[in-house]
Amino acid sequence: MRIALGISYQGADFQGWQSQPSGLGVQDAFEAALARFIGAPHVQADAPRWPTVCAGRTDASVHATAQVLHFDSPVQRDPASWVRGLNTFLPPTIAVHWAQPVSDEFHARFAAQWREYVYVIQDDPVRPSQLAPLVGWSFRPLDAAAMHRAAQCLPGEHDFSAFRAAECQAKSPVKLLHFIKVRRHGKFVLVRVRANAFLHHMVRNIVGCLVYVGQGRWPEGQLAQVLGSRSRAQAAPTFAAEGLYLTGVHYPEVFGVPDAADPAPWFAHLA
Amino acid sequence: MRIALGISYQGADFQGWQSQPSGLGVQDAFEAALARFIGAPHVQADAPRWPTVCAGRTDASVHATAQVLHFDSPVQRDPASWVRGLNTFLPPTIAVHWAQPVSDEFHARFAAQWREYVYVIQDDPVRPSQLAPLVGWSFRPLDAAAMHRAAQCLPGEHDFSAFRAAECQAKSPVKLLHFIKVRRHGKFVLVRVRANAFLHHMVRNIVGCLVYVGQGRWPEGQLAQVLGSRSRAQAAPTFAAEGLYLTGVHYPEVFGVPDAADPAPWFAHLA
Repeated sequence: MRIALGISYQGADFQGWQSQPSGLGVQDAFEAALARFIGAPHVQADAPRWPTVCAGRTDASVHATAQVLHFDSPVQRDPASWVRGLNTFLPPTIAVHWAQPVSDEFHARFAAQWREYVYVIQDDPVRPSQLAPLVGWSFRPLDAAAMHRAAQCLPGEHDFSAFRAAECQAKSPVKLLHFIKVRRHGKFVLVRVRANAFLHHMVRNIVGCLVYVGQGRWPEGQLAQVLGSRSRAQAAPTFAAEGLYLTGVHYPEVFGVPDAADPAPWFAHLA
Repeated sequence: MRIALGISYQGADFQGWQSQPSGLGVQDAFEAALARFIGAPHVQADAPRWPTVCAGRTDASVHATAQVLHFDSPVQRDPASWVRGLNTFLPPTIAVHWAQPVSDEFHARFAAQWREYVYVIQDDPVRPSQLAPLVGWSFRPLDAAAMHRAAQCLPGEHDFSAFRAAECQAKSPVKLLHFIKVRRHGKFVLVRVRANAFLHHMVRNIVGCLVYVGQGRWPEGQLAQVLGSRSRAQAAPTFAAEGLYLTGVHYPEVFGVPDAADPAPWFAHLA
């Protein structure tokens, strides 16, 4: 029986989604809790983890309000019981929001039609303190309207090689970017971007360039030049991971899974 | 030369304000950074900390957006230089917002006329994840209007013994509470309270009682009975420290120091 789950997590405590030899991946913590909840005799004592597949493998320090997982369960539980039970075993910075039985055709990674990310940046001469692990920071003030205008060369189908990390394993650098919006809300600047899929570090590299525009170090038109160059050397440095959130994953309606795990993250009332 | 500073911090990384044998007090981290910035020959190599006095000694896991410190400096620096320099040496979850030379009559603790705290509670069947260290959590829904009404027996001068921790070292349990307001903002309930001074655990014990009222476990009138009893045994359990913020400390105008260090904490746009 295949189950889909919507989960949220704080990235600062983990070395990214993916399982690590250190055991500090979100996946390590999640699969250990899942194995405890499923319980013996299904779970082998020498491998006390239950395998899952996720929609998007987030980097170290990146957060999710809408990660989607699937796994094949040897036991039957109510959706509410999966949510309550797993939340009992998970560490405090990971939470399950919904559970849904799905058909065997559902695949958290391959069935996804689009992913959405939000980047929260605070521009202030003083560093954030309470929010240090939850926002990016720019010492210099940002011109959000200029950033928004500069970003409007990105929507559409493009070769995004200029924003691709060297380690990226995607088969093709061509992706379809649905939209990108930059808006100021008080002392926060939010970048919201949706695409069919993202290359490794693509959001952080785009945001790095937008921050250069917002700080007045680059003219607005430079983003289009960087995109056209298809050269990583032309782009600005990768921006810090701290402010990045995976906020939505969309599947064909037939599977009946929600787009977001946590429908109201802390920055929702900014928008 | 006496200097006053306004600082903010995230409490989760520290064992409270006060210096600890473990070195994990906010004070330990702060005084070490201050000693580095002041530098040799003023600072002794075998005691590389510079002493400070704070307005309010926050508990483990309690945050501050408006802690005030003073110290006597052997060196002269511009206010902007204190801010930038100290922020370079401090850990990422502590930030200095302002610095101000003050007269020798200024005392961060004894000159304070009132303190203000905000408690941020999320009521949701699902635990917070990103905000786990930054908010209190109630599994059951809270009736914020009932909590507000129940709290209106508290303003004025009262013996607050019912809300006082056994370890409290205050000379008198009588304090003047200026106001207490409970308001809902989306999925957050904010409790804002101001008093001339607070007993040990007073805010957390009051909030514990208000949460009982908000969850419908206590009638609204019970808070007045608890207050009148002056007995800690009558009050509800101390509420978790995670959602509590020191948000304001006020001094006589003559000293010219601001009431808040960070004038726009993340929950400010909720209000």
